[in-house]
Amino acid sequence: MKSRDGNDLWPFFEPHSVAVFGSLKDGMGLGYVLIKNILDFGFSGRLYPVNPSYSEVLGMKAYPAVTEIADAVDLAVVITPPHTVPSIIEQCAEKGVKAAVIVSENFADAGGEGVKLQQQLVDITTHSAMRIMGPNTVGVFNACNGFTTIPYPFGYDRVRKGCIAYCSQTGVVLPECQPLEDRAYPISKMCDVGNKCDVNEVDLLNYLADDSETKVVAIHLEDVKDGRSFMNATRRLAACKPLLVFKSARSEAGARASASHTGSLAVNDRIYDNAIRQAGAIRVNTWQEFWDIPKVFAYHPLPLGNRVAIISHSGGAGVVATDAAMESGLAIAKYSDATLAKLAGLSPRLARNPIDLGPPLSLTDDPMTLQEDVIFTVLNDDNVDCATIVLYVGTMAPISYIIEMFDRLQKRVSKPMTVWFYGTKLSLVEEVSQQLEWLGVPTYTDQETAVKALGALVRYSRFKSGLE
Amino acid sequence: MKSRDGNDLWPFFEPHSVAVFGSLKDGMGLGYVLIKNILDFGFSGRLYPVNPSYSEVLGMKAYPAVTEIADAVDLAVVITPPHTVPSIIEQCAEKGVKAAVIVSENFADAGGEGVKLQQQLVDITTHSAMRIMGPNTVGVFNACNGFTTIPYPFGYDRVRKGCIAYCSQTGVVLPECQPLEDRAYPISKMCDVGNKCDVNEVDLLNYLADDSETKVVAIHLEDVKDGRSFMNATRRLAACKPLLVFKSARSEAGARASASHTGSLAVNDRIYDNAIRQAGAIRVNTWQEFWDIPKVFAYHPLPLGNRVAIISHSGGAGVVATDAAMESGLAIAKYSDATLAKLAGLSPRLARNPIDLGPPLSLTDDPMTLQEDVIFTVLNDDNVDCATIVLYVGTMAPISYIIEMFDRLQKRVSKPMTVWFYGTKLSLVEEVSQQLEWLGVPTYTDQETAVKALGALVRYSRFKSGLE
Repeated sequence: MKSRDGNDLWPFFEPHSVAVFGSLKDGMGLGYVLIKNILDFGFSGRLYPVNPSYSEVLGMKAYPAVTEIADAVDLAVVITPPHTVPSIIEQCAEKGVKAAVIVSENFADAGGEGVKLQQQLVDITTHSAMRIMGPNTVGVFNACNGFTTIPYPFGYDRVRKGCIAYCSQTGVVLPECQPLEDRAYPISKMCDVGNKCDVNEVDLLNYLADDSETKVVAIHLEDVKDGRSFMNATRRLAACKPLLVFKSARSEAGARASASHTGSLAVNDRIYDNAIRQAGAIRVNTWQEFWDIPKVFAYHPLPLGNRVAIISHSGGAGVVATDAAMESGLAIAKYSDATLAKLAGLSPRLARNPIDLGPPLSLTDDPMTLQEDVIFTVLNDDNVDCATIVLYVGTMAPISYIIEMFDRLQKRVSKPMTVWFYGTKLSLVEEVSQQLEWLGVPTYTDQETAVKALGALVRYSRFKSGLE
Repeated sequence: MKSRDGNDLWPFFEPHSVAVFGSLKDGMGLGYVLIKNILDFGFSGRLYPVNPSYSEVLGMKAYPAVTEIADAVDLAVVITPPHTVPSIIEQCAEKGVKAAVIVSENFADAGGEGVKLQQQLVDITTHSAMRIMGPNTVGVFNACNGFTTIPYPFGYDRVRKGCIAYCSQTGVVLPECQPLEDRAYPISKMCDVGNKCDVNEVDLLNYLADDSETKVVAIHLEDVKDGRSFMNATRRLAACKPLLVFKSARSEAGARASASHTGSLAVNDRIYDNAIRQAGAIRVNTWQEFWDIPKVFAYHPLPLGNRVAIISHSGGAGVVATDAAMESGLAIAKYSDATLAKLAGLSPRLARNPIDLGPPLSLTDDPMTLQEDVIFTVLNDDNVDCATIVLYVGTMAPISYIIEMFDRLQKRVSKPMTVWFYGTKLSLVEEVSQQLEWLGVPTYTDQETAVKALGALVRYSRFKSGLE
């Protein structure tokens, strides 16, 4: 039985040489597209197209079979009809290829004959050292070295490099499906383990625990292959970096639906819930939380306590934030006397938490300065551990004013803060949000997740301090 | 004591003559801006600017006092410094003005002297027939007749006319703060009751229950002035049209925060929860639900049962939708034998629920036709009451293909469906969503709310049938 310590997963993410099996039809074949993606993305290793019908593609020699390649091959990417896959994998194993991503579908995911076909792959991995990812996967995306196994066209180089690893057992999480560029998620690696005939979430969690380029891990799962190993891997990872787990197929019907597209089985959801919590990981329950909570860990230091300051352009939104804060395990910060005096000096109604900036801003000739003074005063208070800020964005003041304010605030004080912008034009809200992300301040498309993110940060901080 | 049956609220929404008290400074004064808003928005009644410092504004005669206006005045809108408000209101009452919106702030919302000032207003209303909305409110917005009391510049005529009334006790819900145009919400009326010195949620609910232009009501509340009247009004409204209630200030800290900006008091949240449910209204708990769930009622007939079909471009998203469906009181529809046979004929892996369109679409030369056939076949099944659909939107196929497909589907079958689009470009996702809204298909920015909306529809349907 293979060790699942993650040490043998490097050929998937950082191969020196890659063989690609698939159609090399000009501009259309998935093998062709993948090779073009890899070249465009800036991969610096060696590439070997394998297809007996071609002698050349994109200026490279094509090989009739993997056995014809003289050099060592770290990774094979297989995108051929399912019945051809076992023999290709067999040949790869014989040649000593270290790892294979099987993109091809219609294995356990299709039921019937596909289940038998997948079993043939399992048999090969038990008799060789080769690791297999998939089938029914698009494999990996590595923003750090410009490598991917995704055979769909997309501007992969436009994804922002960063320290969050997003993993899944479905392709919907990968770059060609999500607004990664528009939202400016800072990404290290992404991975879809598909049908998990060999490589599964345990390998991946262990690999990412040791990956120096990854500081936060978010994983989407429908099932877990081995509960005890999963617990151990989760515990190991959460001990060194924040781990967010989106476990779907929570309901019995969801588990049945999952089984029909990945061939997986159901377990009582409460078991997952307890296991995830006990390990110090954080469970998220929606796509929005899955995508948007990790970045609060990527940008910010862990807070020292749970005392939140709420600063809003709207009194009503301040109340909603207060509810969300209480429901996320935060406490409403009680400002120091010095802070209260300073705030009261700026405007009598500011000396409270949540702060409704609306009325004072409408009374001053210099609202931008007053706003910055208030936010800085509050963040600078020792009784405040973190802040959530709600700002209206309109055409009256340029976006650059807001960005410059946060730039100055970030330089003066380094406490976690999340921001929710609202306004009449979605394009404006998105533009200011994207710019602020690049500055390292997490922004949210809904107010409640902006507060939940701080709650997650506080919970992990307490876990790391041995308080939870 | 005044009746709160809503019969005397018409002067707020449909006045024939309006007096505006406030600064008439050219282009800047809030009275000036309001008068311009009303003129631009297409109001056909009479307008009387009132300000002793001006003799004319925007080509209209300005009056030194309300008593100088010869005609009857239905509505006064007051945007003057707080200490001047009681005497203005007193004069209006004496003249027989039917209603007043007090936009001015710094009454109970500010505490201290403001509380006494607000009490003076309460005293006036108890001795006259005049109704007061506010203070600390922007008042009303009526898309049906082009009237508003909001003194901030905005293209009010760009808001889509429709049948949803959104009400609140905070200005954040009004047109000048929300992307009403981009999201194409179909709106009849909007209203912010502010500090509720007189007109409150009970008047409003009763008024909207009888309003023929409103078919769905969404109300945001932080507190309730009189529990029993609120229960009665809620029950009366929910008996004739769907009512969604976003009750914030759920937590004690939230209620304290609410008290500080509206002068309201806290009640145990569970009481609200029970009251709302028993009345047949639907409680929503986030801004996103508040804005996006009502439209499913505006566009669709009530479903006959709770059996949902899930059709998705992604197997993983299908599982998430299944979880959300189970958690929203829906049942996963079991297709008829005829439907299963038809689906299997289209592609073997389609004969299931949720349907993962991904693999079959990648195998056909005509994915748009296959997709439409699948959706129509499923919606046409008598065992299906509603559907949630998840579609990838990219640059490969024009948006018009998607819109035309839904246009044909809507003409062939009239069951409720909600749609969640995902893709790499937010602008594309928003464009297709907006176009589909105009077609009368509700779209969602997150998958879970798309499913919850169907759950709300089913719950109200069961309530109306006497099942809940």
